[in-house]
Amino acid sequence: MTWKSIGIFDSGVGGLTVLREIMQSLPQEDTIYFGDTARVPYGTKSPETVTRYAGEIASFLIKRDIKLLVVACNTASAVALPTLKRQLTIPVVGVIEPGARRAVEMTRSGRIGVIGTAGTIRSSAYTRAIKRLKPDSEVLTRACPLFVPLAEEGWTDNQVARLTAQTYLKELKDAAIDTLVLGCTHYPLLKPLISEIMGSGVILVDSAEETARTVAGILGEKKLLRPSTERGNHNYFVSDIPAGFVRVGNRFLGGRLGDVFQVSLDDETGII
Amino acid sequence: MTWKSIGIFDSGVGGLTVLREIMQSLPQEDTIYFGDTARVPYGTKSPETVTRYAGEIASFLIKRDIKLLVVACNTASAVALPTLKRQLTIPVVGVIEPGARRAVEMTRSGRIGVIGTAGTIRSSAYTRAIKRLKPDSEVLTRACPLFVPLAEEGWTDNQVARLTAQTYLKELKDAAIDTLVLGCTHYPLLKPLISEIMGSGVILVDSAEETARTVAGILGEKKLLRPSTERGNHNYFVSDIPAGFVRVGNRFLGGRLGDVFQVSLDDETGII
Repeated sequence: MTWKSIGIFDSGVGGLTVLREIMQSLPQEDTIYFGDTARVPYGTKSPETVTRYAGEIASFLIKRDIKLLVVACNTASAVALPTLKRQLTIPVVGVIEPGARRAVEMTRSGRIGVIGTAGTIRSSAYTRAIKRLKPDSEVLTRACPLFVPLAEEGWTDNQVARLTAQTYLKELKDAAIDTLVLGCTHYPLLKPLISEIMGSGVILVDSAEETARTVAGILGEKKLLRPSTERGNHNYFVSDIPAGFVRVGNRFLGGRLGDVFQVSLDDETGII
Repeated sequence: MTWKSIGIFDSGVGGLTVLREIMQSLPQEDTIYFGDTARVPYGTKSPETVTRYAGEIASFLIKRDIKLLVVACNTASAVALPTLKRQLTIPVVGVIEPGARRAVEMTRSGRIGVIGTAGTIRSSAYTRAIKRLKPDSEVLTRACPLFVPLAEEGWTDNQVARLTAQTYLKELKDAAIDTLVLGCTHYPLLKPLISEIMGSGVILVDSAEETARTVAGILGEKKLLRPSTERGNHNYFVSDIPAGFVRVGNRFLGGRLGDVFQVSLDDETGII
């Protein structure tokens, strides 16, 4: 019997933090990762453009016979998930819903903060997801456009990163939230700094872990999990291989990035 | 008699600083600007990908009957100019050569600094252009990946910008350069801060002005200038209209951005 893979995509390398969690909790599963490195970042692009890109990537992965699609990109999860869910017959998991669920589970005061790219925050997707689960919660949001370039530059604990984080997080800190959702897959790299600034009283929610748990739950329920005696293979595709990709990718994946293949999406005409 | 337009393109809004200089020195000329906002930034992408994108945009502009093409993007000028010059029959002007020429004219000590995106600096295009003009010059370069997001965030004179600029510019300052090329169209927005850090003894070279002068020279020589009694029209095309585009665009163009049209490059198959 052959088993299908789990498909995962992101606008770039950030989604590798989600892949890492899936590899850890489901080591028996084959995975196919697609990073749209030729068109990164999605956070500054319009919803229509991001939805079109997501459709092209879904089409690419579907052709490689996946059993479940993880949209490991907050911006794409925020704007393209309804379209993908409507047009695909396999389960589609975003990172917003799991992150929101985790935040609602963890909060005591009901005052929840969310940080992300301009696109994710403007979409209000986390706010809507949290309010749907806990209507009486209070959600405070803040776009942090400099966090992604800081993480990619490797400036995660210097004075520039500290001042930037203090500036971005000031209002959330003053508002006395007790839970903060890291609504961008790059942000786990800044987690120690964000934690230091917010203080130990604030729980940081990293969507990656909860997304991996959701994937395991769905595959278990649908009897699609490979036997746990198996050992998964991992394939990596990107739309461009820029200098430094492997270095940054390994930083995100804890040094376990395999061979990466560059492919063109020119033939993909959207969701099949 | 109808006159053709000047075509100008950049990966995004940055090239508007070049357009602004052209509008100022040649107010009689029609212009067509293309900003590849769906695929910005180019600085982190591979030379092959940037060259392909430049070809698609050139094809789009050539179909609109331009008489000269300005590559108002340092990354594209650095990696795609030879291909464009070989494949097009109209004059093609990049921003590297004019910036390099200006630097060589201005330097007294022959110690010239160049800052830009990772892609521009890695290409060594400025170093090669400067050395070609003045073989005995000493060229020191530094990639400044955070300057573009800082300029777009509007953080051009706060403490984060100051610390970032101090970090990036320290070596160049210690090396006692007397001329610094701002090798990215976004950097003029940070000019006051960079000038403050480098000190009054260092001349800052902004390629935009010199590029406009080169364009005027070529059109004059080829008798392609419109009569100076005319008044040019300006058209703006982008591959995506993200939120904030008009605000950022007006900041770059001094408040004179006209109607912006979104177009798809899907039909463009490279240079015709």
